[in-house]
Amino acid sequence: MELLKQRILAEGKNLGRGILKIDSFLNHQIDAALMAAVGAEIAREFAGTRPSRILTAEVSGLIPAAMVGHAMGNIPVVYARKHKPITMMEPVFIETAPSHTKGNVVSLMVSPEFIQAGDRILIVDDFLATGRTIDALCRIVQSADAELVGIATVVEKTFEGGRAALTTWGVPIYAAATIVDMSEGKIVLA
Amino acid sequence: MELLKQRILAEGKNLGRGILKIDSFLNHQIDAALMAAVGAEIAREFAGTRPSRILTAEVSGLIPAAMVGHAMGNIPVVYARKHKPITMMEPVFIETAPSHTKGNVVSLMVSPEFIQAGDRILIVDDFLATGRTIDALCRIVQSADAELVGIATVVEKTFEGGRAALTTWGVPIYAAATIVDMSEGKIVLA
Repeated sequence: MELLKQRILAEGKNLGRGILKIDSFLNHQIDAALMAAVGAEIAREFAGTRPSRILTAEVSGLIPAAMVGHAMGNIPVVYARKHKPITMMEPVFIETAPSHTKGNVVSLMVSPEFIQAGDRILIVDDFLATGRTIDALCRIVQSADAELVGIATVVEKTFEGGRAALTTWGVPIYAAATIVDMSEGKIVLA
Repeated sequence: MELLKQRILAEGKNLGRGILKIDSFLNHQIDAALMAAVGAEIAREFAGTRPSRILTAEVSGLIPAAMVGHAMGNIPVVYARKHKPITMMEPVFIETAPSHTKGNVVSLMVSPEFIQAGDRILIVDDFLATGRTIDALCRIVQSADAELVGIATVVEKTFEGGRAALTTWGVPIYAAATIVDMSEGKIVLA
């Protein structure tokens, strides 16, 4: 998606070790119109998969996922919680994944109320890097006997192998922007 | 806002001790169209305040805040982070507040990059209860020498005193839905 690529090149910072800082429009400050445009693009890409729910993870996946849900004609958007709120009292689906940008292992929790057998789930997240957060979401979909129909991300970093790791799920994988090289301070888009 | 009130009455659960569970459209699953309508309403209410940025807090404030930013003609939306990501390396504004639904004290961090002297800040959050999270955001605005222009929430619980606690900030406070009584299992809207 051209608009997104331009913003990554203009504002993205390569912090080394594959860490891309795009805090000015996605991960701390949000450009809602840009995210709505990304959401519309993902919605077009996956229109044929007819999801019944969008699934994402706290925190930075929320806005793109909500924009996709909105663009698809108001599909419910469910976000896996990393910290159990007091309102989450019943048993939950829980999986863990190492966090790339926090340096720890995070839990991802989804209430069975919001992911059910027969649901058609489109996963939307901000980054596809190693794919381990998304893989944890896929395992939740599987545990719930729901059907995974696709995986969409705002930014993919191909050199971290996430796409290859997720191909076992057998669904289309789409990224609105793809970064192929971040070595030596570079940010090279596909 | 009538649509929101209807949803609270239809789907809200009173868990006791003033805890309202509205996980089906705001706090775990999101109804993006409803949130867009709430965002548009808040945008109309605060159009005259001409904010330069919207400020919210992780996690559940993000969607309403993004919808307000979008409805106001793409005002940047900044979310205070509760957990420091690896991309947040510079000094940050930090305040703490007790969490109502987590039972602990949370930190709220905003990078000086995204809240600057002279900024006109509209705070948007999901709940106004005791007002302590929002008060922490107000203190961040103050520390940054930015100007607070208003406080908007999706749901206010009047019986927890937040509005009174926040009046010292001297700005308009608005809630899209107002709950006046949750005693004895009731959910009474204004």
